[in-house]
Amino acid sequence: MGTRVVIAGVGSTKFGVLPGLSLQNMAAEAARAAMTDSNIPPARIGCVFVGNFVGGIMTGQELLGPIVAADLGLSNVAAVKIEAACASSSAAVRIGHDLIRAGAEDAVLVIGVERLTGAPRDALTTAMTAAIDQANEGGAGLTFPGFWGMVMARHMHLYGTTREQVAAVTVKNRQFGATNPLAQFQKTVTLGEVVASPPISDPIRRFDCCPATDGAAAVVLASENLARQHGSPAVRIAASVLVNGPARITDYEDIVTHDGTVNAARRAYESAGVGPEDIDVAELHDCFSIAEIVDSEDLGFFPKGEGGPAVTREASARNSKVVINPSGGLLSKGHPTGATGCGQIYEVAMQLRGKHPNQVPNARYGLTHNGGGTAAAVTVHILEAFR
Amino acid sequence: MGTRVVIAGVGSTKFGVLPGLSLQNMAAEAARAAMTDSNIPPARIGCVFVGNFVGGIMTGQELLGPIVAADLGLSNVAAVKIEAACASSSAAVRIGHDLIRAGAEDAVLVIGVERLTGAPRDALTTAMTAAIDQANEGGAGLTFPGFWGMVMARHMHLYGTTREQVAAVTVKNRQFGATNPLAQFQKTVTLGEVVASPPISDPIRRFDCCPATDGAAAVVLASENLARQHGSPAVRIAASVLVNGPARITDYEDIVTHDGTVNAARRAYESAGVGPEDIDVAELHDCFSIAEIVDSEDLGFFPKGEGGPAVTREASARNSKVVINPSGGLLSKGHPTGATGCGQIYEVAMQLRGKHPNQVPNARYGLTHNGGGTAAAVTVHILEAFR
Repeated sequence: MGTRVVIAGVGSTKFGVLPGLSLQNMAAEAARAAMTDSNIPPARIGCVFVGNFVGGIMTGQELLGPIVAADLGLSNVAAVKIEAACASSSAAVRIGHDLIRAGAEDAVLVIGVERLTGAPRDALTTAMTAAIDQANEGGAGLTFPGFWGMVMARHMHLYGTTREQVAAVTVKNRQFGATNPLAQFQKTVTLGEVVASPPISDPIRRFDCCPATDGAAAVVLASENLARQHGSPAVRIAASVLVNGPARITDYEDIVTHDGTVNAARRAYESAGVGPEDIDVAELHDCFSIAEIVDSEDLGFFPKGEGGPAVTREASARNSKVVINPSGGLLSKGHPTGATGCGQIYEVAMQLRGKHPNQVPNARYGLTHNGGGTAAAVTVHILEAFR
Repeated sequence: MGTRVVIAGVGSTKFGVLPGLSLQNMAAEAARAAMTDSNIPPARIGCVFVGNFVGGIMTGQELLGPIVAADLGLSNVAAVKIEAACASSSAAVRIGHDLIRAGAEDAVLVIGVERLTGAPRDALTTAMTAAIDQANEGGAGLTFPGFWGMVMARHMHLYGTTREQVAAVTVKNRQFGATNPLAQFQKTVTLGEVVASPPISDPIRRFDCCPATDGAAAVVLASENLARQHGSPAVRIAASVLVNGPARITDYEDIVTHDGTVNAARRAYESAGVGPEDIDVAELHDCFSIAEIVDSEDLGFFPKGEGGPAVTREASARNSKVVINPSGGLLSKGHPTGATGCGQIYEVAMQLRGKHPNQVPNARYGLTHNGGGTAAAVTVHILEAFR
């Protein structure tokens, strides 16, 4: 039931260190590109959702919805910021999708944007830990490298995952990033370089971590009818899911299985009528190299505990059955937190349109997985190429 | 067309200086009260929207959607923060309303929450100006007292509005606040005290300004059918509108007429099939006393330029045709920015249920008006009592 919803157009800035560009500059650049790409008249856009996590803490700028809408010349629209930490802009896509699917809107512009560089290091740490429950675990000193360090240690303990298997995620994603013009890191690294890089949060080392990134990405969501009328280069949204998971790690039964991802994936596959075996290309939330392994298990690409060996036998590499993070992922393309979700959808849409620099041949189904906090907010989108 | 949507239940903390309560504490308190009031089973709630403006800047806490949802025991919901400066939570109500009206959800919990006290004065100023375009007018030194000081001076110049007429807004709203147990200020002031209070931004004086406030308010939105099934003490949403207006004051043709309010009101009256003459009670965004006058004109209660005399002839006071801000308004009840929109809906719902401490007799239609930034994001809600 409901109207079929499509990604009618996509746009993106380069991801990286972008001095001199404000949040609103980056957001408007990506949005204009997406609106042009979609060919849908701006007057049909009823909502402008800006996904952003820490614009307030890092830059002192809120109210991005109306400010960016005004920059784009859009008036009398419903313009708000939507925040779900690192899943902000994909969460906004879910809400926009539902409004169109139910018939409340014809077209919604969703922009993700973040500036993470250029502020003192302390500001960045304060900003990132804003996604941890401050009254409970934040006050106890928990950080994200700390959380993922515990996940990695536990995964190695339970399943025999090796240091080299985890490092192989970074090697793979840096290879992909090297040939993605939008990526922040366009330089490959060796397994030895990852393992020998400076320790951050044992057993996590520097090259296991995504960088701090500036950037914006945008998508125009529309009803399939509207997109057809205007000849948009559309891909279909087969599933758009946002769920909350445990918001404190002490609420987890097991920190190597992320309930939010498992539940979001189950709903998404049901909604799309496909399974993990049908997915040709996936962009996963590899904020740390171990995260890609955990996510690839929770999404059903590999059984729990087999995500590590899967990387080293190249079961997620170029030309494998499911290619994971051919954009370079957060590890190499970069992680402008609030922009990451729309950035992933940009990448998968380009794959399904056959126009990606690291093209997966004949990709029909693509999946994006984006998480906020300790997998406290999780989105899964399944996109399908029109044939 | 579409399902009829109701305010099925409401809840609120006291508004005021609430030391020791975190954002999540306040949000959960208001939300539990609203959920209990609605009598709707928590499992029917599909979305949790937390309206919040400056939780990041003031407290370092983001990701309030999943954190508050977890505190409430709600899992597998779509939980996000929605931000539109001082209109954050009413903007969230608009999105929740549209999801239910179009059939995408049966029930949505919207919570507004803010903590504005307890931080250094500089932090509060930084926080509030986050709703001004930093790259343009923020960098030039514009603040909200500055903006409203210009509006007041211009209104006096154009229309002959007097200092005493503007001060009469504060006197009226303080009288109402004195008998609202939720209000921050429960003490009346005289016209002389307002006029003699210290200058803030000429011609604005201290008692023309709303206070910095902590607090939370929540509403459960539901389809009329679901509310009937569970015997909710519901009021109907006759119109729910969010529009963007000029995001920079240099984009205004005239700073004493706020396009966002005018356009939102027009849409709301059309949608509800009523006019300003049908409204019995209204909660307007009186962040400064002059704002209530401007808003009362832009909403059509009085012709442009006649809002000042209307106050002194008691055309918006107790027992008038339209009673304005019987809660005490932002000036007296207080202005916990992100919570204000839900707080206004709480007040009007209680009026339409006949249970308000400053009850407007036989109130059938109530209106709320909530603005973010320099009227850059404006919501208007029209609620109707079930008879």
